[in-house]
Amino acid sequence: MVATDIATRVWNHTFKLDPIVRSLLDTDFYKLLMQQMVFGLYPDVRATFQLINRTVSVKLAREIDEEELRAQLDYARTLTFTKREMIWLAGNSFYGTGQIFRPDYLEWLADFQLPPYELKSVDGQFELIFEGPWTDTMMWEIPALAIVNELRSRAAMRTFKRFELDIAYARAKAKMWEKVERLQSLPDLKISDFGTRRRHSFLWQRWCVEALKEGLGQRLIGSSNVLLAMETDLEAIGTNAHELPMVIAALAQSEAALKAAPYKVLEDWQSYYGGNLLIVLPDTFGTGGFLRDAPDWLAEWTGFRPDSAPPIEGGEDIIAWWTSRGIDPRERLIVFSDGLDSDTIEEVYHHFHGRVRMSFGWGTNLTNDFRDVAPEPATGLDAISLVCKVISANGRPAVKLSDNPAKATGDPDAVKRYLAVFGNPDYGSRKVSV
Amino acid sequence: MVATDIATRVWNHTFKLDPIVRSLLDTDFYKLLMQQMVFGLYPDVRATFQLINRTVSVKLAREIDEEELRAQLDYARTLTFTKREMIWLAGNSFYGTGQIFRPDYLEWLADFQLPPYELKSVDGQFELIFEGPWTDTMMWEIPALAIVNELRSRAAMRTFKRFELDIAYARAKAKMWEKVERLQSLPDLKISDFGTRRRHSFLWQRWCVEALKEGLGQRLIGSSNVLLAMETDLEAIGTNAHELPMVIAALAQSEAALKAAPYKVLEDWQSYYGGNLLIVLPDTFGTGGFLRDAPDWLAEWTGFRPDSAPPIEGGEDIIAWWTSRGIDPRERLIVFSDGLDSDTIEEVYHHFHGRVRMSFGWGTNLTNDFRDVAPEPATGLDAISLVCKVISANGRPAVKLSDNPAKATGDPDAVKRYLAVFGNPDYGSRKVSV
Repeated sequence: MVATDIATRVWNHTFKLDPIVRSLLDTDFYKLLMQQMVFGLYPDVRATFQLINRTVSVKLAREIDEEELRAQLDYARTLTFTKREMIWLAGNSFYGTGQIFRPDYLEWLADFQLPPYELKSVDGQFELIFEGPWTDTMMWEIPALAIVNELRSRAAMRTFKRFELDIAYARAKAKMWEKVERLQSLPDLKISDFGTRRRHSFLWQRWCVEALKEGLGQRLIGSSNVLLAMETDLEAIGTNAHELPMVIAALAQSEAALKAAPYKVLEDWQSYYGGNLLIVLPDTFGTGGFLRDAPDWLAEWTGFRPDSAPPIEGGEDIIAWWTSRGIDPRERLIVFSDGLDSDTIEEVYHHFHGRVRMSFGWGTNLTNDFRDVAPEPATGLDAISLVCKVISANGRPAVKLSDNPAKATGDPDAVKRYLAVFGNPDYGSRKVSV
Repeated sequence: MVATDIATRVWNHTFKLDPIVRSLLDTDFYKLLMQQMVFGLYPDVRATFQLINRTVSVKLAREIDEEELRAQLDYARTLTFTKREMIWLAGNSFYGTGQIFRPDYLEWLADFQLPPYELKSVDGQFELIFEGPWTDTMMWEIPALAIVNELRSRAAMRTFKRFELDIAYARAKAKMWEKVERLQSLPDLKISDFGTRRRHSFLWQRWCVEALKEGLGQRLIGSSNVLLAMETDLEAIGTNAHELPMVIAALAQSEAALKAAPYKVLEDWQSYYGGNLLIVLPDTFGTGGFLRDAPDWLAEWTGFRPDSAPPIEGGEDIIAWWTSRGIDPRERLIVFSDGLDSDTIEEVYHHFHGRVRMSFGWGTNLTNDFRDVAPEPATGLDAISLVCKVISANGRPAVKLSDNPAKATGDPDAVKRYLAVFGNPDYGSRKVSV
């Protein structure tokens, strides 16, 4: 006898929408930390975010149906935090600290919904813009990216036959597990999933996190994805992002205020958070200038997250800075998170092992490595360099210089002004593949 | 909402037996062809079959629970052919010929059930014996082997966690697909699944056949498994096996009758079958002697299936024999079926391409290649050389000499007598791994 659950079958064949983002917790943890600070200190600032496809050769609006994208974004806008999600946020300990979220913020968050978006197609690309209060628009970054990336992989696989899907996922799993086995040779590894925004799909990210958990045990320290952290009892991992210095700098009324912005943000941050959440992201306007002008108190912070410098040079510069401040780097942490894969993780691990504490935030190549897994070539499965960046705050242009000029964003005149204040990049341009 | 089909769930948690063989058609096609001939010509012969584990280092009775084995064998004994199976056997064309099965045989078959078995454990091995009419005992070979092999892989995987199973099957699929991709480079390939007896499991065999179908298209000419052939509209493939000459030789009352036995069997065969079913299995008592004494009419047969000679030497000897009889080998067929894998298939294909028609019967390394796929080493997943051979007929010992002395079976005195009649092996001993 063949048993079919008729209700499930009928549900399937009356299929309307398979939502990509089904929970507001399906986002990166740092968004909540930053949102709480923005809610407390910058409640009236307006910020505009925009989707930017750095892989210009890929014409997103030709691969993805605009109506499908609207349907997914609209669905995400219907979401609010559920009761049990709110209870978990209030009751869980993060980074060993209880009640990290304040009651007034949580009360406000309980009614939060994603704000409206503006979408059109221009020359084969989507112009997707989020305008409104910073507290609101900032929350679109991760769901917008996850939606576009998953719609793209769905489109690429639409023509696959049942068996081709089977082979593709079997090979992707085999490939992923080879990476895990490679990482098993690093006994002191600390690694975290940072792959939400670039994931192939939600279910695939969940599988990858499970693979890390099974294969690396305690060496997997957590996931940036709050929903996965909650569902699988992992630590939610993350601290802060470039949008904080970018917005504060955009708001600066003088050159002096602009120059002070990167440190002002850190003072704001430590008025909210302590301990392991005190991680500096130094590269927004160039790591070299940042370290040269950094105040002494910053040496007390737990660590740095170099995000665009070449990892070995960038790490060495940070270690040198600690040493110059009389700090033993072995008591400090560097979080590597830029374009990692198992081979680069291995290289960086061996280079710094024993000299500094390290952890790795593994993103795109963890959750979206489908290169060469399909039985027939399918370039639509290759990950692209898609970001969602703040482009202006209170009407003033926002700029990111980065340690890698290929990752700079912002209006050219504003970029010129920032370069005059912060100095030229300390590292050469490197190809941005993901 | 999480939807669970409660009936299915309860069925699962009251799990009693997951039968390995669920249909009498889950056997190799040649068994039915041979059974029809035995039913017609040797209805009163009694034959005893026995399980023989040539991989003596593997203690089957320590890996597999005897009670589980009994439960599976008992379940198989409850089976009869279903009505639609009988209709398919009667109505389908095999090798392009309709009504290959005669009405009297089909009428008898409709009530057929597997006969009793005798099972005990001796020194860590199973002594599994089938005694009775040849028509009945012969049908145990394939289900008995499939059951023991699948119970062994189930035992090996019993300790696997959910995720380890996931990785193991993903890797096995990736490995299998690499083989398929390799075979795609052979444009004139004709290949068939011969992997029922040694399969990892029924479901895995089905997947492997599907993979060949997807990857090789028309180059997959069929499956030896009658159930899979029926369910997937493939050709059922197979002709005859060593048991025919072994039994006829055992029954021989004189040295002359013994020497004539291998050819007597072929006369019997062609009184039942024609065309592409006229395939000679020449190695039962050594291919060299067989070819030297073969009658001229045999050159009219469609082809040979060398099953224990080294494939290139064996194939060359057969081609030389055809040539000596004035036959163009390009009008004849060689079916290779001994210990093949994608690399040996490739080698043999290139060696003989254009000189003779070829097809390949791919067994163990198609349906049971789980070497190195488990996250933790699991030798219980490595295929073993398990056979189920006729050991006596009407109380007289049955012997197989084979082209590979490592594959010889039978009572030592009887083997000596057969060597005196048929001559010594023409090829050296080769390791039997599967």
